[in-house]
Amino acid sequence: MGMDRNGSGAKPSEYLYPPELLQRLDFSKSPATFKPKISAAQPGEDWMVVRPLQRSDYDKGFLQLLSQLTSVGNVSQKQFDERFTQMKQSGGYYVTVIEDTRIAKLIGAATLTVEQKFIHNCSLRGRLEDVVVNDTYRGKQLGKLIVVTVSLLAQEVGCYKMSLDCKDKLIKFYETLGYKLEPGNSNAMNMRFDDPS
Amino acid sequence: MGMDRNGSGAKPSEYLYPPELLQRLDFSKSPATFKPKISAAQPGEDWMVVRPLQRSDYDKGFLQLLSQLTSVGNVSQKQFDERFTQMKQSGGYYVTVIEDTRIAKLIGAATLTVEQKFIHNCSLRGRLEDVVVNDTYRGKQLGKLIVVTVSLLAQEVGCYKMSLDCKDKLIKFYETLGYKLEPGNSNAMNMRFDDPS
Ligand SMILES: CC(C)(COP(=O)(O)OP(=O)(O)OC[C@H]1O[C@@H](n2cnc3c(N)ncnc32)[C@H](O)[C@@H]1OP(=O)(O)O)[C@@H](O)C(=O)NCCC(=O)NCCS
Ligand SMILES: CC(C)(COP(=O)(O)OP(=O)(O)OC[C@H]1O[C@@H](n2cnc3c(N)ncnc32)[C@H](O)[C@@H]1OP(=O)(O)O)[C@@H](O)C(=O)NCCC(=O)NCCS
Repeated sequence: MGMDRNGSGAKPSEYLYPPELLQRLDFSKSPATFKPKISAAQPGEDWMVVRPLQRSDYDKGFLQLLSQLTSVGNVSQKQFDERFTQMKQSGGYYVTVIEDTRIAKLIGAATLTVEQKFIHNCSLRGRLEDVVVNDTYRGKQLGKLIVVTVSLLAQEVGCYKMSLDCKDKLIKFYETLGYKLEPGNSNAMNMRFDDPS
Repeated sequence: MGMDRNGSGAKPSEYLYPPELLQRLDFSKSPATFKPKISAAQPGEDWMVVRPLQRSDYDKGFLQLLSQLTSVGNVSQKQFDERFTQMKQSGGYYVTVIEDTRIAKLIGAATLTVEQKFIHNCSLRGRLEDVVVNDTYRGKQLGKLIVVTVSLLAQEVGCYKMSLDCKDKLIKFYETLGYKLEPGNSNAMNMRFDDPS
């Protein structure tokens, strides 16, 4: 095998999951309204791409982007690589990003995780995690774009439902995308063991 | 290798995860109060055992137990086996059960799933799923026992927090076990794709 495009030799363009999955998502199935119309395959600008996380994204500001959502800590390239490898081996991790290819930086991200169940005929349950859009790119439909992308992906890979936990102020946002609070059954509780660093 | 105890030849006593993990859990770390005192290692009755799911549990009423929680459908032995194998290969699935060894039937179950993250220094997040106690055994601390078991297990395997979604009427139950609703941030939302069968 020859040198990759980026010249690093470390399989920089390896995807976490097959990118073809995103091309076939049918955005007309989502209750979200996009004005103008966009989709994962056609995000509206030629410098924008929606794709799976790549191993080379450590150098495209993935962790800096996540740090706009919560604390990330000092994650080395080696730690990132190991977690990427573990996620790929485990399966069920669909970390999805939006890149501004003009500057080779990630500007949005959301994760679908797929949990295997015995109930409901050995079903699969999706979860939406770690949604963030770079602050200078907010208010341009990218939040909707990335959330609808991974929500349609959940259905595409066979989940019977997709779940998320969120702050009060984001309930309306998620309702416009098809998520519902179910009366009497919408409590997210947590037990914390440690202060995360 | 010789025949196993149950004589089926199909590795019936294979565990989903190492049972030793449950023996070392320190129940004094839980805020739950047990009267009388019990733990996963010492569940209080000599006919009761708390352990990981086993491949042979298809024949010990595991799916019938789950059907007291929600719809399970017609899961064949083959489907059960495949899901068991997939969960074990993926890692991060800690399906935990209580058996009444007098009748070789499961009487309680709860699942810890462990999600790999990049945030919080490539942390792990636990989730409590599919908690159920057989109806004729309820009100005898077994619900507390199985939930505290998998909650301590989450900490033991390195999770920084453990999360659950629940109905309004179970909030008090989980609060006594150390779970909290976080003000402004305790909304569980869902999008359903299909009627589960
Ligand atoms: C939440 C977030 C991803 C939204 O991204 P965005 O690109 O600004 O969102 P969009 O441009 O797609 O907005 C879609 C719609 O939701 C609304 N919206 C966006 N963020 C909102 C918020 N915090 N509260 C209420 N409404 C919001 C927008 O007004 C817009 O409405 P419209 O379609 O009627 O005009 C972004 O604000 C973010 O990264 N926040 C910080 C991280 C975070 O809180 N993540 C979610 C954790 S639960
Ligand atoms: C919820 C469940 C697991 C509890 O099991 P259990 O063995 O009866 O619970 P315990 O005996 O350990 O009860 C512990 C305490 O919680 C209380 N409790 C139990 N179920 C409760 C309920 N549904 N609502 C309010 N309190 C409850 C008990 O009164 C007891 O309180 P105490 O310690 O002050 O006496 C059991 O009722 C069950 O399987 N229910 C059906 C499935 C289900 O709803 N699962 C949870 C999905 S979110």
